[in-house]
Amino acid sequence: MAKVKLVYFDFHGGRGEPARLALHIGGVTFEDQRVAFSDWPAIKPQMPYQALPVLEVDGKLLAQSNSINRFVGKLTGLYPNDPWQAALCDEIMDAVEDSTRLLAGTFGIKNDEEKKAARQVLADGPLRLSLQQMQTRLEQSGGNYFADDRLTVADLKVFAWIKDLRSGNFDYIPTDLTNRVAPLLIAHFERVNTHPKVVAYYASR
Amino acid sequence: MAKVKLVYFDFHGGRGEPARLALHIGGVTFEDQRVAFSDWPAIKPQMPYQALPVLEVDGKLLAQSNSINRFVGKLTGLYPNDPWQAALCDEIMDAVEDSTRLLAGTFGIKNDEEKKAARQVLADGPLRLSLQQMQTRLEQSGGNYFADDRLTVADLKVFAWIKDLRSGNFDYIPTDLTNRVAPLLIAHFERVNTHPKVVAYYASR
Repeated sequence: MAKVKLVYFDFHGGRGEPARLALHIGGVTFEDQRVAFSDWPAIKPQMPYQALPVLEVDGKLLAQSNSINRFVGKLTGLYPNDPWQAALCDEIMDAVEDSTRLLAGTFGIKNDEEKKAARQVLADGPLRLSLQQMQTRLEQSGGNYFADDRLTVADLKVFAWIKDLRSGNFDYIPTDLTNRVAPLLIAHFERVNTHPKVVAYYASR
Repeated sequence: MAKVKLVYFDFHGGRGEPARLALHIGGVTFEDQRVAFSDWPAIKPQMPYQALPVLEVDGKLLAQSNSINRFVGKLTGLYPNDPWQAALCDEIMDAVEDSTRLLAGTFGIKNDEEKKAARQVLADGPLRLSLQQMQTRLEQSGGNYFADDRLTVADLKVFAWIKDLRSGNFDYIPTDLTNRVAPLLIAHFERVNTHPKVVAYYASR
């Protein structure tokens, strides 16, 4: 068995959460290294692309969150074998990443009025459109899961994103945005959130 | 055999070029739909996530360029079977996408001095760092190809990116940036550029 370590920030969400959940659901023993934000500047230059999450497998580093999710998905049986179903899984993960980057692009805005304006443009435009398109994809895939008629890393990626969007951590992003524009994603969120291994994971922390 | 159509803009580069090249190299018959920029506003609302490229397979649409590259890579034998080699392939494609987005983020800047400043920050910072990290990855993978000791879609993705960076199409991005900061990527570019099927493809257009 490979020695696996996931390096990410110390909170329940963001780009590292899907891989953490997949490893727990798949029962893979791994080191869950959680980096305090205060320690990040010292660690950053050592990381490929100076970003997290990073997966370490037998001492070798892998960067890029969706690349990590895909590798972990194969390791845990949470990634489709069929090429088309795999492509649907990939497409959704990339779509979430698109939205994540747009939102992350507002983190550095110092002026509060400017931040408010930028985030309202996102919420009314690209974030809304992306949520609606994800809902369409969910419907096309049968309504329960995004690919392969079962839980995959795509579901965990969307789950973590909706969790972030509803968290209230992002000023001027209405926490009820998903409820209003893509209610099926809320039903999907609850489906993942009540998965016995997801319940057990959050209960254990 | 599936009926395949690739929809992308009418130029030799950008996010659609790796899949076009892979389909040509793999000898897959496909419809190469090239959208004129003047036609794009009318087509845009019909596309998932309102973006290109889009791959159509037996009438079903797939969005997200790297998801398309991966699916096409499997179709053409240009994607690794081994999970770790596949992960290295994925990581590089995602890294190119990171840089592509940063550069695309400057397209809308109207003021020329502002555009110049923004692009100089990119060229001296994240684009340079990313090129250096890609060069390191290339060296770690043996120096010739990014994964699996052979040509994969990762090589085509980096090839198209370096082609774009050297094109002179982006004001204030020095065309010799790659030569200066990651010369092994230039040797890699020439390796792909002189691949007989790549030569034949560009000669035919």
